[in-house]
Amino acid sequence: MSTPLSGQLHSDHHVLEQRVYFEDTDFTGVVYHGRYLNFLERGRTDYVRLLGIHHHEIGDGLHGESLAFAVHRMELDFKKPARIDEIIHIRTNRGVLKGPRLIFNQIITRGEDVLLQAAVTVVLVNPQGRLRRFPQKMIDDMGVVQGKKN
Amino acid sequence: MSTPLSGQLHSDHHVLEQRVYFEDTDFTGVVYHGRYLNFLERGRTDYVRLLGIHHHEIGDGLHGESLAFAVHRMELDFKKPARIDEIIHIRTNRGVLKGPRLIFNQIITRGEDVLLQAAVTVVLVNPQGRLRRFPQKMIDDMGVVQGKKN
Amino acid sequence: MSTPLSGQLHSDHHVLEQRVYFEDTDFTGVVYHGRYLNFLERGRTDYVRLLGIHHHEIGDGLHGESLAFAVHRMELDFKKPARIDEIIHIRTNRGVLKGPRLIFNQIITRGEDVLLQAAVTVVLVNPQGRLRRFPQKMIDDMGVVQGKKN
Amino acid sequence: MSTPLSGQLHSDHHVLEQRVYFEDTDFTGVVYHGRYLNFLERGRTDYVRLLGIHHHEIGDGLHGESLAFAVHRMELDFKKPARIDEIIHIRTNRGVLKGPRLIFNQIITRGEDVLLQAAVTVVLVNPQGRLRRFPQKMIDDMGVVQGKKN
Repeated sequence: MSTPLSGQLHSDHHVLEQRVYFEDTDFTGVVYHGRYLNFLERGRTDYVRLLGIHHHEIGDGLHGESLAFAVHRMELDFKKPARIDEIIHIRTNRGVLKGPRLIFNQIITRGEDVLLQAAVTVVLVNPQGRLRRFPQKMIDDMGVVQGKKN
Repeated sequence: MSTPLSGQLHSDHHVLEQRVYFEDTDFTGVVYHGRYLNFLERGRTDYVRLLGIHHHEIGDGLHGESLAFAVHRMELDFKKPARIDEIIHIRTNRGVLKGPRLIFNQIITRGEDVLLQAAVTVVLVNPQGRLRRFPQKMIDDMGVVQGKKN
Repeated sequence: MSTPLSGQLHSDHHVLEQRVYFEDTDFTGVVYHGRYLNFLERGRTDYVRLLGIHHHEIGDGLHGESLAFAVHRMELDFKKPARIDEIIHIRTNRGVLKGPRLIFNQIITRGEDVLLQAAVTVVLVNPQGRLRRFPQKMIDDMGVVQGKKN
Repeated sequence: MSTPLSGQLHSDHHVLEQRVYFEDTDFTGVVYHGRYLNFLERGRTDYVRLLGIHHHEIGDGLHGESLAFAVHRMELDFKKPARIDEIIHIRTNRGVLKGPRLIFNQIITRGEDVLLQAAVTVVLVNPQGRLRRFPQKMIDDMGVVQGKKN
């Protein structure tokens, strides 16, 4: 089976295929709950990179500050556990922008089974950790949907 | 500074002191968001152990099945980042029982600063992954509060 | 770029392509040294699986015991660091058998650069942690070379 | 049981007490081999900090460069596995200097049992990854032994 290393880019979502290795499991025999955050982050990272956003290029046009993504909030629903050697798929839906916050809905599946549902809010912060709005170019590149402000 | 390795047990909560090491940080210079789940799990584990619940003793009086804790849902609000070498405190409040679900409110602080707020729902599952109610003895040992059923 | 998820199997070695993600880096800006052990383990695991050895099938023909691989010794030479987003290749050479020990020479590269050289000795242990010799069928399946006994 | 969070500083070694948590184990039921590198790093870090060396203070008196520790080589002998909930001790012996390389012998024990023996070579590198000799003040602060040059 061959698969793009960075996953498959679709018009409104991205899918990354990954393997479960020893490092992901714990003594209960299934994947340790905290490891799913790594899988989710790999999915978001590859999606955003394929959309043309690079870590070293994130800059604020107004101030010239160096900015970084930061996870602001997560809601995680664990449905079923993954096990060693299994192949899982991380689907990341197109981001929804609500003011300075960008929300990615993500889902991890194994075949037909849904293993995890997640809503991940990311923000842009400057080196002092202060919130910055997403530059318009980045919004355009990522094709994000405007959600309701709140 | 001396501290109990398993943290301090209070009447309605538990506090675990931990250090941030290299392994916890990422290239942005702060703690990787996924690592906070390890800190939260260390806090819950030490709290539950000090309350007298042990991994190898969890059994269902009715069926004699071997049961295990599983994380069912998490809500995480990331407030401020921790950095290398810092000392953080993980506070775990007494669990609230809602039917088969046990909810722990947890907070990670660094001095006066709140770094993370979390609501973590755990359940008991049998080896086939099926939900089981918490045995009364475990409820009594953990001194959990009865929440509204839903 | 497309690549087999489980890497490429060659006559006397295996190559696995992997991406460096946030989780792999630390605050010094490069990959945390301990994470390379995950990359090495992913390479060995995929190699051994492609050779037809499965975790749930490892059994000792003589005693019917359930056996597991365990890492016995590692020698690691760190040459150059990898960084976020980079693509690295984990090459695992055909194992060399010395008595009950199986030695895999592994190398991690990024393009032309050698990042890490490793010699990893694995053994088979029973559930009580006692050393067992590799069954002949497993030796045959893995096509391992007989090294000098010592 | 109370223990200093940063471990105990002795005249020629340091001992750090740590707990094994879920995150450290894998599906085989014991601690994942790669996690021992975290325990070793925690021990070295706390030892070096107690000796007065801080990440943000490491500077080369001659060039004013910002320097960082990097792991250069590791030899690891895995003797026995640790399991969930166990308390382990990481002993780090006083460093031995050989030219630009500083070697720490480390041992992880559980009660009377030796779990892991390690020889860890660390070096100082500048931001371009080039090797720098340890400044004399750092050598003095760490009380390192002069080994045979090679």
